[in-house]
Amino acid sequence: MKTVLTGVKPSGQVHIGNYLGAMKPAIEMCSRDDVAGRLFVADFHSLISVREPKVLTEMIYDLAASWIACGLDPQKTLIYRQSDIPEVFELNWILSCMAPKGLLNRAHAYKALVDKNQQSDNHDQDDGVSMGLFNYPVLQAADILLFSADEVPVGEDQKQHVEIARDIADKFNRAYGDIIKVPNMDVKKAVTIMGIDGRKMSKSYDNHLPIFMEPKKLRKRVMKIVTDSSAPEDPKDPNDSLLFDYYTHFATAEQLEVMRKKYAEGIGWGYVKQDLFDAIDAYFEKPRQKYNELMNNKDELDRILSDGADKAREIASKLMDEIRVAIGMRREI
Amino acid sequence: MKTVLTGVKPSGQVHIGNYLGAMKPAIEMCSRDDVAGRLFVADFHSLISVREPKVLTEMIYDLAASWIACGLDPQKTLIYRQSDIPEVFELNWILSCMAPKGLLNRAHAYKALVDKNQQSDNHDQDDGVSMGLFNYPVLQAADILLFSADEVPVGEDQKQHVEIARDIADKFNRAYGDIIKVPNMDVKKAVTIMGIDGRKMSKSYDNHLPIFMEPKKLRKRVMKIVTDSSAPEDPKDPNDSLLFDYYTHFATAEQLEVMRKKYAEGIGWGYVKQDLFDAIDAYFEKPRQKYNELMNNKDELDRILSDGADKAREIASKLMDEIRVAIGMRREI
Repeated sequence: MKTVLTGVKPSGQVHIGNYLGAMKPAIEMCSRDDVAGRLFVADFHSLISVREPKVLTEMIYDLAASWIACGLDPQKTLIYRQSDIPEVFELNWILSCMAPKGLLNRAHAYKALVDKNQQSDNHDQDDGVSMGLFNYPVLQAADILLFSADEVPVGEDQKQHVEIARDIADKFNRAYGDIIKVPNMDVKKAVTIMGIDGRKMSKSYDNHLPIFMEPKKLRKRVMKIVTDSSAPEDPKDPNDSLLFDYYTHFATAEQLEVMRKKYAEGIGWGYVKQDLFDAIDAYFEKPRQKYNELMNNKDELDRILSDGADKAREIASKLMDEIRVAIGMRREI
Repeated sequence: MKTVLTGVKPSGQVHIGNYLGAMKPAIEMCSRDDVAGRLFVADFHSLISVREPKVLTEMIYDLAASWIACGLDPQKTLIYRQSDIPEVFELNWILSCMAPKGLLNRAHAYKALVDKNQQSDNHDQDDGVSMGLFNYPVLQAADILLFSADEVPVGEDQKQHVEIARDIADKFNRAYGDIIKVPNMDVKKAVTIMGIDGRKMSKSYDNHLPIFMEPKKLRKRVMKIVTDSSAPEDPKDPNDSLLFDYYTHFATAEQLEVMRKKYAEGIGWGYVKQDLFDAIDAYFEKPRQKYNELMNNKDELDRILSDGADKAREIASKLMDEIRVAIGMRREI
């Protein structure tokens, strides 16, 4: 049995890029018999950028509801909110005392902002940088290390954070003995899902397909997917078609076979789009129902999350007790 | 009734410089009828510099025992360990998200280290700087703001920390409404107590007189106090005498009068030192007894501190509940 930990920052409606790239593989991983999955809502990471309280509250519930609706089983996988685990913030401070500032000076997100300031001739290279942004790899280290994860699945762009966590854990263990588990990294190949305009799918480009969008609106978005100008009767190549790419993720094997034939024989893009919409709509119908149920029953969501938090704190508090004694914050009794 | 908050970092045996400069005035302040005193042991601040667990544990108990032995009444003044208040570390993160990094780049303790590195031609200006050191003004802001202090007494050298706390509180309130009390600063004139070698008293110079030192050892230290080379029969000026300075703090009015006469008539320094030792010894006799009792009964100390923590958390959790709703981390119920 290995412990696999995943944290997700609430950032608004999940789209099919998030779903296919991160959520679906993580849910599959968590459902495996040999995996003890831990998934946390990294709500306090969102505070770095989200200053509208109502938006943040909704984002947090939205994230938890989305994962559960898409198949994460709270009975099998520990799901909890970071903000429900006070030990995370205490460990964050302890790890701060171990982490050299130089390590954080080199963190990607921080460096990107400094570069931007320098390129725009801003005399203040730290303009727009909050201490939250500067510190968040340390908080992330606390998130990871507190739960003694064997493995942390990450994309290429997140590798550095796990490296920082490993680095700080090593420093702690060298000073105080072998107490904190140094996690392995499971680097996942990036799955890039294209947006409806052909660029990478991203909320910031507004080219995304939210998985729980109301069907009418979703259909409109699907109809906007860019295509080439070939005529309906022209034979089409499924290997060079954004619409077909999407279709592979949501259609059944038979549906795919049928579509392949239609491509060869020639089909109007409008018909392909309608079939694609039908497939996406069918794929997410039940999850969307579950999602709406949960979002209309925040008490139930709170119950699930606080139940997860109780279990998570049982794990966290054991390690924290050990750490407090190891650093001398408490005497051994 | 005004709330006055003081935090003290454990750093080992209290000496008469600490006692006269900070402890005694704070205990007097806390005993006033119009003051609700809150004194916390800033144990997690010590972790920045203390890496020996056993030393740290003793320092923490030593500090609490010293204050109580010297007259701090745990029934009247809230005394608690910072590490017992998880809300402090959660608020620390929240305030991090409000605090611009630039504010911390200008913090004195950090700048002093950078200057030192630059002067020694160290190519890494952050050499030896941990994230704990860089962040600690934010943690200190959390310490202060969580308890809605009306007033924070500080020395000149600590002014900047309260300014940073006020600054961050303002930023929070501008973003989320008037929720955090912005504390006033009560800047105390520095009382500088000289060490036995005539330089400022400091553990790092090893010229200090620990208040609870075992009498034999303390006497030896007193005997080492530097004096001029005047002969016993020479009349001496009490206004230009380190020994007399010390004596004013610990002798009774009558004893002082007698000593003044002896100075005028001429007295050997050895006799003055003996009288001074007797006065210090008498002054701290009962507190030393109490201190030793407490240090030999850590369970009792734990009880006092956890009792204080319970009361402190009642206060802290109310404000934190408000803050969590204000920032959108929790919905309003």
